[in-house]
Amino acid sequence: MREAWVVGAASNRFGKMADTGREAATRVSLAAIEKSGLEPKDIGYTFVSNCFGIAEHQAHVGPLINGGLGIPDVPSCTVESACASSSAALHEAFVQVAGGFIDAALVVGSEKLSHLDTLAATSYFAIAADYPFETRNGATFPGLYGTLASAYQAAFPHPPEMLGAIAIKNHANAARNPHAHFQREISMDTYLSSPIIASPLRLYDCCPFSDGAAAVVVAAKEFVKKPVTEPLVIRASARAGSITDMQDRPDLLGLPATKIAGAKAFRQAHMEPKDIDFMEVHDCFTIAEAVAIEDLGFFPKGTGVKAALEGVTVRDGRLPVNSSGGLKAKGHPVSATGVSQVVEVFEQFNGLAHGREVPKTGTALTHNVGATGGSCSVHIFSHR
Amino acid sequence: MREAWVVGAASNRFGKMADTGREAATRVSLAAIEKSGLEPKDIGYTFVSNCFGIAEHQAHVGPLINGGLGIPDVPSCTVESACASSSAALHEAFVQVAGGFIDAALVVGSEKLSHLDTLAATSYFAIAADYPFETRNGATFPGLYGTLASAYQAAFPHPPEMLGAIAIKNHANAARNPHAHFQREISMDTYLSSPIIASPLRLYDCCPFSDGAAAVVVAAKEFVKKPVTEPLVIRASARAGSITDMQDRPDLLGLPATKIAGAKAFRQAHMEPKDIDFMEVHDCFTIAEAVAIEDLGFFPKGTGVKAALEGVTVRDGRLPVNSSGGLKAKGHPVSATGVSQVVEVFEQFNGLAHGREVPKTGTALTHNVGATGGSCSVHIFSHR
Repeated sequence: MREAWVVGAASNRFGKMADTGREAATRVSLAAIEKSGLEPKDIGYTFVSNCFGIAEHQAHVGPLINGGLGIPDVPSCTVESACASSSAALHEAFVQVAGGFIDAALVVGSEKLSHLDTLAATSYFAIAADYPFETRNGATFPGLYGTLASAYQAAFPHPPEMLGAIAIKNHANAARNPHAHFQREISMDTYLSSPIIASPLRLYDCCPFSDGAAAVVVAAKEFVKKPVTEPLVIRASARAGSITDMQDRPDLLGLPATKIAGAKAFRQAHMEPKDIDFMEVHDCFTIAEAVAIEDLGFFPKGTGVKAALEGVTVRDGRLPVNSSGGLKAKGHPVSATGVSQVVEVFEQFNGLAHGREVPKTGTALTHNVGATGGSCSVHIFSHR
Repeated sequence: MREAWVVGAASNRFGKMADTGREAATRVSLAAIEKSGLEPKDIGYTFVSNCFGIAEHQAHVGPLINGGLGIPDVPSCTVESACASSSAALHEAFVQVAGGFIDAALVVGSEKLSHLDTLAATSYFAIAADYPFETRNGATFPGLYGTLASAYQAAFPHPPEMLGAIAIKNHANAARNPHAHFQREISMDTYLSSPIIASPLRLYDCCPFSDGAAAVVVAAKEFVKKPVTEPLVIRASARAGSITDMQDRPDLLGLPATKIAGAKAFRQAHMEPKDIDFMEVHDCFTIAEAVAIEDLGFFPKGTGVKAALEGVTVRDGRLPVNSSGGLKAKGHPVSATGVSQVVEVFEQFNGLAHGREVPKTGTALTHNVGATGGSCSVHIFSHR
C-alpha cells in the first residue's frame, strides 16, 4: 500500500451561498488543486458529495465539476452516507490512491439548501433517518439527538452549563475562522436563555443549516515528489456502520459506529488516543461532541460532557476539539462537512489557522457521523 | 493487485415492485450472498446505488440494508453516477477488493419510481442532465437521445427498420428472461406503427421506467477458495467522464466517455474487441446500442446500426448483444441497471440463462452510461 497524502484543501465561507452547489464545488476544487501545486490534469478521479443536489434539480455533478476544471474525461461519482458523505468519499479516494489505482484524486463536498424554507430543509435532512420507523412517525434530528441527550442526562446527570460550554467554545473558535457560518462568540447567558428545541437541547445546542463547499486533493507520496504545502499523511481511513434506528440499539449512551470506526482507525495508525494532538468531531448537537470524544476513547463514559467547561477541549487546552468551530458554529453544509474537517487540519498543519492556532499540530483526528450514527468515518493524519 | 471475482448475483423481476427500494435491495442482496456460498458476515463493505431514494423519503440506505442482513457494523455508502451508478459502485468494490482493503463487498442497486406519475418520474430522470443548460430549457432524455439519433441519421442514412431490429432483438431476448420488465416479443409492424416520441425515435426505441433491484458479491480469489458457482474474473473495471452538455461536444456521432472507458478496459484486460464473446451495452434507446458497439470498437462508425438487422448481434449471432433484453426490454431501474448487466453475465457463465443462452460464454463485456455520456463504466469478465 502506498502512502496517501492530503496535499491541498480549500473551503468557501459557510452560511448562505449565492453560488449554486456545483459552482461552489468547482470553485473550491480549483482552489484546493491550486494550493496542492498539482494541476487539474493530474487528477485521476473526482469524488463528489452533494446530498441535496435534487433541491437544485441536479444530480450527476461530477462531470459538471470536471468540465469546469477542464478535465471532462476524468471519471467521477457522487458518494452519499448522510452527513458522513464527504468523509466516505475521502475514504474511496484514499483507497484508490493508496491502492495504486490512481495517483491523485479530488474530493469535494458541496451543499445548498438556503433557497428552501425551513420545513423543506428539515425534510431533506430527515431522509437520512429510517423513513417508515422514524421520519414517518415524526422523528427529526433535533428530536433524535434530544433523546440521546436525555438518556445521557439520566445516566450521567450534569448541569446545563456543561453542554453550554461546548457551544461557547465552538462559537469562540468559529469567531476566528473565516470559513465559519457564525463568526461570533456567545455567552453562557445567551446559551441558557435560548429556547428549548428538543429537550434538553436548546437553540444553541444545535448546528445550523448551512450552504457551503470544501475540497481536498489526495495524492500518492511518490507522485507529489516536492509538496508545496505541508502534506497531511493519511495514517488511517476507517469506516463503520451501525443499526440505524435508535430504538433497536442496546443503549443510547454512545454511537456504536464511532466506537468501531475509532478503534479501527487507531489500529491502522498504530496509535492510541494519547497520540492525538487535536481533533475535529461531529458536533451536529453539543451532546454529540460529548459522546464522540468518549466513544473515540479520549474520555471515560460520562465525563466527555465536562471537557469543555473544564477547559480541556478549548483551543489552547490539552486536547483542542473543533478548533474550526465545528458543525455547531462553523456550520453544517451536510455534504461539505466531512471534507471541511480535513480543511481545518490542513490549515492547522500549514500555519493557516490564523488566530485559532492549536498548541500542537503533530497529529490530528477527524470524526464524521451519518444521521444518528448509522455511519461513521474516522481519519487520522500526521506530518511526514 | 489481487484477482477480484464476482461470486454471486441476483435480480428481482423488473417492472413494478410492491417492495420499497430498500426492501428489494435487501432481498436481492441476501439472494446474491446465498448464491455466492459466502455469508453476510464475510461482507466487508456494502456499496449501494439508489438514485431516487428521495422519491421514497429515504437516503442513507446502506445501514438499513446491512441491518436487514444482520451485519449492521459493516460500513457502507451510496454511489451515484446517474444511470451508471451501480457500475460506478461496482468499480469501488473492485478497487477495495483488488487493492486488498477488504476481502468481499456487496454491490446492490435498487430503484422504485412506479408510485410516481410519469411527469414526476421524468423529472427525477432529468436531474442527471445539466439543469441550467439542458433540463431548465426543456431537454429530456428522449429529446437528447433523439438529437443523437438525428445526427447519426444525417451522417449515416439508414432505414427505420435498422433501429427497429435492435428493439425486436432485445424484446425477443427479454421474452426469455424471467427478470425482464417486458417479457414479450414485438414485430417490425408493431415497431413501425408505434408513435414518434422524439424524432426519429419511436415508442419502441425507448426503454421504460422500471422498478427493480439487482446485487452482486465481489470477493478476492484467495478469500473465496472454493467457489460454489462459476466465478466471473474481473479482467477490467474502467470508467471515464465526458462533457455533459451535448452542445459543447465536437460531434454527436458517439459518446467520448464510452470510447475512453472502453479503450482503458481493453488495455487493462490485455484484450481486443475480437476477444469478447458477448456483451451487455447501455441501450436506453436503440440508437444508444448502435453507437455503443461502435464506440467500443466492435464495428466501424456508421455500421453498428445494421448489426441487429443483419443478425450479427442477435442471441445466436456472431456477437450477441443484450441477451438479457437490455435496458430496452429487460427494463431500466436506473440504479439497478449496471449491476443487472453483471447478473446477466453471471447467469450466462453459470448456465442459468435458460432459453436465452449465447453460443460462447468465455468472455463478456458490460457497458453502462450515465445520462447522455457524462459518465461511462466498462467491465470485462472471463472464466478462471
